[in-house]
Amino acid sequence: MAAFSNTRTVRIEWGDCDPAGIIFYPRYFEIFDASTAMLFERALGRTKFQMFKTLDFAGFPLVKTHARFLKPTRFGDDVTVQSSIVFGRSSFEIEHTLSLDGTLRAECSEKRVWTIRDAEGRLKSHPVPAEVLAKFG
Amino acid sequence: MAAFSNTRTVRIEWGDCDPAGIIFYPRYFEIFDASTAMLFERALGRTKFQMFKTLDFAGFPLVKTHARFLKPTRFGDDVTVQSSIVFGRSSFEIEHTLSLDGTLRAECSEKRVWTIRDAEGRLKSHPVPAEVLAKFG
Amino acid sequence: MAAFSNTRTVRIEWGDCDPAGIIFYPRYFEIFDASTAMLFERALGRTKFQMFKTLDFAGFPLVKTHARFLKPTRFGDDVTVQSSIVFGRSSFEIEHTLSLDGTLRAECSEKRVWTIRDAEGRLKSHPVPAEVLAKFG
Amino acid sequence: MAAFSNTRTVRIEWGDCDPAGIIFYPRYFEIFDASTAMLFERALGRTKFQMFKTLDFAGFPLVKTHARFLKPTRFGDDVTVQSSIVFGRSSFEIEHTLSLDGTLRAECSEKRVWTIRDAEGRLKSHPVPAEVLAKFG
Repeated sequence: MAAFSNTRTVRIEWGDCDPAGIIFYPRYFEIFDASTAMLFERALGRTKFQMFKTLDFAGFPLVKTHARFLKPTRFGDDVTVQSSIVFGRSSFEIEHTLSLDGTLRAECSEKRVWTIRDAEGRLKSHPVPAEVLAKFG
Repeated sequence: MAAFSNTRTVRIEWGDCDPAGIIFYPRYFEIFDASTAMLFERALGRTKFQMFKTLDFAGFPLVKTHARFLKPTRFGDDVTVQSSIVFGRSSFEIEHTLSLDGTLRAECSEKRVWTIRDAEGRLKSHPVPAEVLAKFG
Repeated sequence: MAAFSNTRTVRIEWGDCDPAGIIFYPRYFEIFDASTAMLFERALGRTKFQMFKTLDFAGFPLVKTHARFLKPTRFGDDVTVQSSIVFGRSSFEIEHTLSLDGTLRAECSEKRVWTIRDAEGRLKSHPVPAEVLAKFG
Repeated sequence: MAAFSNTRTVRIEWGDCDPAGIIFYPRYFEIFDASTAMLFERALGRTKFQMFKTLDFAGFPLVKTHARFLKPTRFGDDVTVQSSIVFGRSSFEIEHTLSLDGTLRAECSEKRVWTIRDAEGRLKSHPVPAEVLAKFG
């Protein structure tokens, strides 16, 4: 078991918002997905692209998520996303909080599995490599 | 309390998929959002656009969701989305199941609130109009 | 040289629209990309996924596009997209028109190249297979 | 006539890329749209949201665009987008170049119109306010 967290700032764009003038909520999941990738990048010192090149790795698809949206955000907002991770054996859980000016606007938890390709090229779950766990300290 | 359901078919497109060749999961939430709009359209006989024109209505933002992804889908798949609704007073809950060839691939529950604009133009929750509930039988 | 065309109907969704209440124009390019894939599917009787499995094919990336947006569309609109193709040797040109109630709203031309993977796995252009051209008549 | 330019860096994300492993081109138009908004933000010292609040302004919809895609980008790439503007009376033209490590990967030109709302709430074109032109020098 290891814990690790990362914080980044994201601009909510005009094109992320809907006719109500607020963020269209699937865009939050795009933000959370990129935040998970960035968490690994910060820990490993490698982009997700480089992870494919250097690790036994075929992606970490989501198996479960839940999210709460407390108050909307809108275009021009610079939100803060804080992401933390706890590892299981072949899976891991991420918690994201998204805040504006110190106030929580949305939160999301994700359960993802570490995958590799089997001989037929299909995705299958696999223990998170020790090399990866070591970098998360 | 009222219950109602709708089924529609959605093509998973090339642009919905990621470098692993499977659907990028935020696209599922776009599909579920459109499925919720279509559920209302089927019940009311009005598009969401017409709902804005004819009802005391400013959208039904999501306040909570959870989803499970059991097995991926990929471009070229024609998936079946079945959506059912249960109304509260100012909110409602939707359950979506997404299947391919009769096999469940993803499921999602949403809690949304019916909103109107207050005098300052801000969104606020409001009881679902009786006219709407009546159409859902 | 071969010509071929296809027509399909697309619903403009709430999530395709921006705070001005009209379609966010990058969504048109998603619609056009899917329309190009559907044009091939109609001619070949295979989805793009099946094209990867059965042809010497690694995608048809866009190299050039231009588009005109005459009058906006908005959520709830069911637009008609007509797409026609003219083949060169390793490339082809597609014209899309997008209409609502018989009135042109947007038009787009695309130049794309047929690609395969070279020995190192990189995309490179390649003549459109004779088998494909034959299906387009 | 006024000229002005802005440069920003954008990370290409996993979710921006398609099963070929390269950017799905409609994402470029999302990047260009946000780059246009940022160009105005840099010149005016106001976000697009604040432009709606403080100017006679209802958006600057695109009327025409063309783009060339020279070489793909992929997830993990940090691209540089340079955007420059030339004003007409009620319209303006933007040129975007998108480069990676100093090499041009894509370029796009946009023609947009400045709009306001008429008495019925419909978008109509309007001369770019003198206050805006003054800020662009």
